[in-house]
Amino acid sequence: MSNWSVYLSGEIHTDWREQIKEGTEALNLPVTFSAPVTDHSASDDCGARILGDEEKKFWYDNKGAKVNAIRTRTLIEKADIVVVRFGDKYKQWNAAFDAGYAAALGKSLIILHDPALTHPLKEVDAAALAVAETSSQVVDLLRYVIRGELAG
Amino acid sequence: MSNWSVYLSGEIHTDWREQIKEGTEALNLPVTFSAPVTDHSASDDCGARILGDEEKKFWYDNKGAKVNAIRTRTLIEKADIVVVRFGDKYKQWNAAFDAGYAAALGKSLIILHDPALTHPLKEVDAAALAVAETSSQVVDLLRYVIRGELAG
Amino acid sequence: MSNWSVYLSGEIHTDWREQIKEGTEALNLPVTFSAPVTDHSASDDCGARILGDEEKKFWYDNKGAKVNAIRTRTLIEKADIVVVRFGDKYKQWNAAFDAGYAAALGKSLIILHDPALTHPLKEVDAAALAVAETSSQVVDLLRYVIRGELAG
Amino acid sequence: MSNWSVYLSGEIHTDWREQIKEGTEALNLPVTFSAPVTDHSASDDCGARILGDEEKKFWYDNKGAKVNAIRTRTLIEKADIVVVRFGDKYKQWNAAFDAGYAAALGKSLIILHDPALTHPLKEVDAAALAVAETSSQVVDLLRYVIRGELAG
Amino acid sequence: MSNWSVYLSGEIHTDWREQIKEGTEALNLPVTFSAPVTDHSASDDCGARILGDEEKKFWYDNKGAKVNAIRTRTLIEKADIVVVRFGDKYKQWNAAFDAGYAAALGKSLIILHDPALTHPLKEVDAAALAVAETSSQVVDLLRYVIRGELAG
Amino acid sequence: MSNWSVYLSGEIHTDWREQIKEGTEALNLPVTFSAPVTDHSASDDCGARILGDEEKKFWYDNKGAKVNAIRTRTLIEKADIVVVRFGDKYKQWNAAFDAGYAAALGKSLIILHDPALTHPLKEVDAAALAVAETSSQVVDLLRYVIRGELAG
Amino acid sequence: MSNWSVYLSGEIHTDWREQIKEGTEALNLPVTFSAPVTDHSASDDCGARILGDEEKKFWYDNKGAKVNAIRTRTLIEKADIVVVRFGDKYKQWNAAFDAGYAAALGKSLIILHDPALTHPLKEVDAAALAVAETSSQVVDLLRYVIRGELAG
Amino acid sequence: MSNWSVYLSGEIHTDWREQIKEGTEALNLPVTFSAPVTDHSASDDCGARILGDEEKKFWYDNKGAKVNAIRTRTLIEKADIVVVRFGDKYKQWNAAFDAGYAAALGKSLIILHDPALTHPLKEVDAAALAVAETSSQVVDLLRYVIRGELAG
Repeated sequence: MSNWSVYLSGEIHTDWREQIKEGTEALNLPVTFSAPVTDHSASDDCGARILGDEEKKFWYDNKGAKVNAIRTRTLIEKADIVVVRFGDKYKQWNAAFDAGYAAALGKSLIILHDPALTHPLKEVDAAALAVAETSSQVVDLLRYVIRGELAG
Repeated sequence: MSNWSVYLSGEIHTDWREQIKEGTEALNLPVTFSAPVTDHSASDDCGARILGDEEKKFWYDNKGAKVNAIRTRTLIEKADIVVVRFGDKYKQWNAAFDAGYAAALGKSLIILHDPALTHPLKEVDAAALAVAETSSQVVDLLRYVIRGELAG
Repeated sequence: MSNWSVYLSGEIHTDWREQIKEGTEALNLPVTFSAPVTDHSASDDCGARILGDEEKKFWYDNKGAKVNAIRTRTLIEKADIVVVRFGDKYKQWNAAFDAGYAAALGKSLIILHDPALTHPLKEVDAAALAVAETSSQVVDLLRYVIRGELAG
Repeated sequence: MSNWSVYLSGEIHTDWREQIKEGTEALNLPVTFSAPVTDHSASDDCGARILGDEEKKFWYDNKGAKVNAIRTRTLIEKADIVVVRFGDKYKQWNAAFDAGYAAALGKSLIILHDPALTHPLKEVDAAALAVAETSSQVVDLLRYVIRGELAG
Repeated sequence: MSNWSVYLSGEIHTDWREQIKEGTEALNLPVTFSAPVTDHSASDDCGARILGDEEKKFWYDNKGAKVNAIRTRTLIEKADIVVVRFGDKYKQWNAAFDAGYAAALGKSLIILHDPALTHPLKEVDAAALAVAETSSQVVDLLRYVIRGELAG
Repeated sequence: MSNWSVYLSGEIHTDWREQIKEGTEALNLPVTFSAPVTDHSASDDCGARILGDEEKKFWYDNKGAKVNAIRTRTLIEKADIVVVRFGDKYKQWNAAFDAGYAAALGKSLIILHDPALTHPLKEVDAAALAVAETSSQVVDLLRYVIRGELAG
Repeated sequence: MSNWSVYLSGEIHTDWREQIKEGTEALNLPVTFSAPVTDHSASDDCGARILGDEEKKFWYDNKGAKVNAIRTRTLIEKADIVVVRFGDKYKQWNAAFDAGYAAALGKSLIILHDPALTHPLKEVDAAALAVAETSSQVVDLLRYVIRGELAG
Repeated sequence: MSNWSVYLSGEIHTDWREQIKEGTEALNLPVTFSAPVTDHSASDDCGARILGDEEKKFWYDNKGAKVNAIRTRTLIEKADIVVVRFGDKYKQWNAAFDAGYAAALGKSLIILHDPALTHPLKEVDAAALAVAETSSQVVDLLRYVIRGELAG
């Protein structure tokens, strides 16, 4: 396979996506990454900004979440591998939703989180083919999966 | 259709499932409900209890979560409607995972939660055909969907 | 096959559904019919009545249409045959939407309309296995399809 | 994803498709657009012109609609996003049919219409991830979905 | 499995279907058989008789074939096993079409024909799980498949 | 869509495939054609020649038909449009099988045959989006479907 | 769900199926079990016995394996849960084939084997939701999955 | 079709993959091959090496098998043809699992093994479109399937 598509879902407040991209670029791995829009306010406001404001918070959020879904569902469906990272803040139900969505589509799931979250994430981890703790482990997974190489 | 299958996913510490069941029974609605195992400790321990203990917390949880998945995935796949309730405690990532899983399978989703959770649940709500705040609204939805009746 | 499921979509202001049901009952055909909620005002108001009122017309309608979709999509997916009738009033885009939805699912489509509508319905008719003009033709179709009998 | 496929269905008597194309080209968005044949008379006559004339109007239309379906169904199935525009003239049942067809295939739907059509289009809008009123909103949606940018 | 669904496609001028039914009834096998309409003239004329006559032979046949397809495609999709018999007369392209249709749906195919037809049926036989020469072999196959018994 | 995939199934004793290819090349249509192996003896003998001879005719044919199926099923599944031509010789059950297979996969079917075959091909034609009599009509169909142009 | 379908694949030389059936019957669990034909010689000979003898071992086996596939593939596709047991004798490639087949269909897999086989079965176990060592553990799994009860 | 994707599963201790690649390269066949990681120790250790060591053999193997599954399931799903070779050593249940997995996905299966293994592989062979004994036969199959050429 000439190229692998990897969708990076979940936490948007640390630079884990950049770490994975830098790691795979340093190795010249043939991977195309995709992700949700990670600009928090753009992601929250896109519906109302593009399609018109809403007074009620519910519809304000609903419009935005649906516009984001055009992007996220399309990209998840095109991905070979879906990596979902859970951080230590916020509810992150959208991350778990993405994991369930990807699992039902039969995508290969890699879940990335601190061991402190093992218990509440047990159902999500149970659907995964790998559970990693660090971005560099995800890079090592992609290296092995694509090239069959184990890091020194 | 002679009978509707409804899966009740999510929060397990209040009696919302019983409220819905009582409400639909009072109306004689032709509904068969299913749900995850709602005994918290049985659900946590089933893997180790049946298949052998594990020292590591990760595998203890992993075994249990997979045994529960035999039940939950089968029942979600058989359901016509999946109701997912989010409460005010715990991470509830399994509930969001179920919602994503059901959405990808094309199930009709009803999400049940307090308005205080609207913002963090916006991606989940965006995949739903109805967002309710109370169990009795779910009963009213089932009554209308099945019989076409609106409560007085 | 012991029983056939037939979904009757579309026009709700004449008694075509009753005619078909009476015709098949007179013949003792093993058919279970299903349909959208045909009470026009209940169908319009169900979302707001059950889940809370909306000031904006768009959301009022949106809530109702989604609640109806729980019923209609489930029943279309369970149907063996989908009959869609177009009348001479209203836009009836929901009827054409149902026809497209059923066609993509591979359901056997029967379209029922007056010959005056042939040209604007040509894309819908092109997806059908039968185009009928009267309810009694639909009864004759069901009789033939199920029992192999042609009416005298 | 290197390129997005967008199918532009529906109304053929205004230049809304050109507006969207010009808008996305000005932004250099990586989008490939497709559409039905928008030459009204060619679209009506293609069946009879290529495969032989028909005396009966029904078969004349039927032949043409099926030839057009070779194009439209293939292109809808290949699309990531399906935009359906409803204008103020004609029955436009083919547009609603396309929307239903795309919805059943799980495509991301954007519906484009004047607010005056909100009520009759409520079932179609309910299946959409975005409901826009202008072509420039569709351009803004594509810009955001593909690049994560909100127009100034 | 409490009951097996078997569709009997193809040749309609001998009593092979009755032989199979009698054979399985004598054994009390839990099988429900289905089949196309086997009354040749009803099958040819159903479209025009129910939906209106056609002067052109092509449309006369086309209408009838589509009405029959409502029955045949539904029953093939519901079948566990599809038996297709080829006789020594007529073109029987509908039988080969049914075999291809059933094969693409992943149905278990049993092909029934005289050895004289082995060469022209080689592509059809290649998609089958069993190729039989007599109705009683089909009965023996069903007996074995359902009960695990080999005839004395 | 930058390129259309068209599979040319059926009759192998006239030059209809070349006619279609020449016609589309003259128009510079973006089409990639595929087809079964059209060398009759290679097609008959491939199984035994590659995998070892067989004394029994049945297995000789069975081996060959399966080797050919590796090619034909893969190419049909990748095609956007499947054209099936029926000639005036041979049983051609493989052509009808391909048509049924393609129909069940939801491919756009074009059937090409002389009007003399209308009656025995009625079930096959009923699954088609176009029924043509000449190769040049197929070229015209592809021209219209791909470019929206009707020949002068 | 009123009844669970469980397919018991694999090893046929010990009474593990009977142990599971007795265990679930003692608990009155609503389970319907299915299995391949477990009479070794009938299973080997069915093809030749029913459809005619073969001199070549390859075709003798091929005929029988395909007749068995009519049963096994149908029952696996209907099952909610597939249990596959590996014993200490024979190659048992059919058991591993069934496990792969069931995994690709998304069935819930339970693998049953002695710990001595852990290493060679690691890819099979990796696709399972539970790996058990004894028949009574499978009974306990079914009890928990269906009723939510843990054995004292 | 411009390029064929062929996945080479199974035995990893002889150079059969290289033989096939050399054979097809010598013929300039447009084939892209993929395969599992064939370095035995890397394949065994990848899970623990990347994601952390495990004391229990079961989890050590389980982690590794799942990491390998990210590669193997993705590549099998992308393949047009899956070749599975069985050698004379080891249990090779993973090879049979891959064959079952590929069969359920409808892939064209070629099984490669010594005739001595015919009986225990009969269920696997029964799902194949070709059963070969040598690598050069597989090259000949690919040559014929792709180009229609039979070797001199």
